[in-house]
Amino acid sequence: MHYPIKSFEVISAIVNEALSTIDLNKQPSGLYEPIAYTINLGGKRIRPALTLMAFNLFHDDVSRAVMPALAVEFFHNFTLLHDDIMDKASVRRGQPTVHVKWDENTAILSGDLMQIIAYELMRQAPEKTLQDVMQLFNATAIQVCEGQQYDMEYESREDVTPEEYIEMIRLKTAVLLACALKIGAIIGGASKQDAQYLYDFGIHVGLAFQLKDDLLDVYGTPETFGKELGGDILCNKKTYLLIYAKKLASGELQKSLNYWLTIEKPNSNEKINAITDIYNQLNVKKICEDAMDFHFSKAIAVLDKVGVKKDKKQALRNLAENLMHRND
Amino acid sequence: MHYPIKSFEVISAIVNEALSTIDLNKQPSGLYEPIAYTINLGGKRIRPALTLMAFNLFHDDVSRAVMPALAVEFFHNFTLLHDDIMDKASVRRGQPTVHVKWDENTAILSGDLMQIIAYELMRQAPEKTLQDVMQLFNATAIQVCEGQQYDMEYESREDVTPEEYIEMIRLKTAVLLACALKIGAIIGGASKQDAQYLYDFGIHVGLAFQLKDDLLDVYGTPETFGKELGGDILCNKKTYLLIYAKKLASGELQKSLNYWLTIEKPNSNEKINAITDIYNQLNVKKICEDAMDFHFSKAIAVLDKVGVKKDKKQALRNLAENLMHRND
Repeated sequence: MHYPIKSFEVISAIVNEALSTIDLNKQPSGLYEPIAYTINLGGKRIRPALTLMAFNLFHDDVSRAVMPALAVEFFHNFTLLHDDIMDKASVRRGQPTVHVKWDENTAILSGDLMQIIAYELMRQAPEKTLQDVMQLFNATAIQVCEGQQYDMEYESREDVTPEEYIEMIRLKTAVLLACALKIGAIIGGASKQDAQYLYDFGIHVGLAFQLKDDLLDVYGTPETFGKELGGDILCNKKTYLLIYAKKLASGELQKSLNYWLTIEKPNSNEKINAITDIYNQLNVKKICEDAMDFHFSKAIAVLDKVGVKKDKKQALRNLAENLMHRND
Repeated sequence: MHYPIKSFEVISAIVNEALSTIDLNKQPSGLYEPIAYTINLGGKRIRPALTLMAFNLFHDDVSRAVMPALAVEFFHNFTLLHDDIMDKASVRRGQPTVHVKWDENTAILSGDLMQIIAYELMRQAPEKTLQDVMQLFNATAIQVCEGQQYDMEYESREDVTPEEYIEMIRLKTAVLLACALKIGAIIGGASKQDAQYLYDFGIHVGLAFQLKDDLLDVYGTPETFGKELGGDILCNKKTYLLIYAKKLASGELQKSLNYWLTIEKPNSNEKINAITDIYNQLNVKKICEDAMDFHFSKAIAVLDKVGVKKDKKQALRNLAENLMHRND
């Protein structure tokens, strides 16, 4: 049956409309307000959009997949809330983080409740699909925790390899995008094969997305980036760029890199400029862009394999391209 | 069909055997070890036992309810892990708490993963019952968070009423016991009415259990109690005893009570003795015991209404009695 595929913009509107129907105006308010606050910080709603867009490949009316799509968004926001505590982040999307605006206990408990709400939304998947959806969601949630653990462990290791890093971001970031897509496919009645292709598409898009993130922090355009450049550099965050720089640097460059990574109270701009310059000399920008392009190509290739007409997949293809070519 | 009902001891052995089959020896070990540690701290395993005992009212072989029973235990232990962070507790069951033995980030993240594992175990409920079981479990988990929120808020309020306190412990503690029982009943194919009676039995047992806890802290026998008396008194914990004491005290007793609650660095034994003495003068021990007995009687009365032969319910009745007459 032919029907027009909904664009990302239409899908986003459906997601945001649905989010506004979730009643978070409950007691005790000290528990629910931080949840509403977190959700209302906004965001592109990419993950729930992916669920609905995958579902839309197989059905015109996406209503049946809306609650599970919101579940993915609630789960994602729960991970951000707890990650911000663990990372001691003070700002998210230009606003104070929950543990700063309220306190840490609130951030822990409201986060716990957000995860439960995610499960309650996911439970509203059509009954026939519930077992499969839950199994995938649980497996994904476990992997996200494992990814976060590796991320934290890597902060204190000096010898993280690019392969380990890719695996960490696969777990921490990519599997949730993949899961969002596959849930939409499962609910949409896709074949196991098509569901798996959409999952794999999500993995590659997710990896490319994170590599783009790493690039933007150093090479983005400040006005459009929304935050100052070099935040990752300042906190010695182990991004793909830094990991490769450490791998490739030798002699003077290595000394210089180590100096800027270990100096106690550096001038921020000096550190950013110095390390960016080392990156440039080692050509790690290109290495990162090549890795990003590799995964983007893989994403497009596996999307092609999904057994629906090519024009139906254009919206997903556009989304992947926009994530690759974005400036923020 | 007649079959012998399993005693609590047999049920506990089934629970502990099943717990030992859950593979927590996974990577990253920094994430999974704290989970194994938490589970291995032990405990009476009352909640999973209640699930299996409720199921056992309707079926001889309890295998079908084992994974959901373990889910309840994992969920319970997750709440303890996060509560210990929020309460800044340094010891649990005589061992260092996870955030002390490892660190706070570990306690947050391993706790998050425990909750997910709970959901994955709960997902293994028989397919026909999954929707109902999940809906109940989610509603309960939400209430437990709400109870914890009220508990934290009440710490800084001077005017908590006994009614508010009962509602807080109902949410924080009782609903999980009730949920454990009702899940066993649902999976066991009980009528909606019997499932609800078992839930209500759990609520009253849970309330009586917490009131007993409040009593034991002040009036327990140190050797059997397993910890020193008066821990609640020392940290001004708002127990039923304290709340009633504040409600009833006037004149000199009220001055004395306020003195001991606000004095900066009291001698521990003096404070415990003084406040215990005030409790004795106000007769709050009896008020607490009466409340406990009230809920215990309600528990037995509603257990009687469950539509199975009385002798089948004896094990549950024994468990409730043991919880009331325990010394630790």
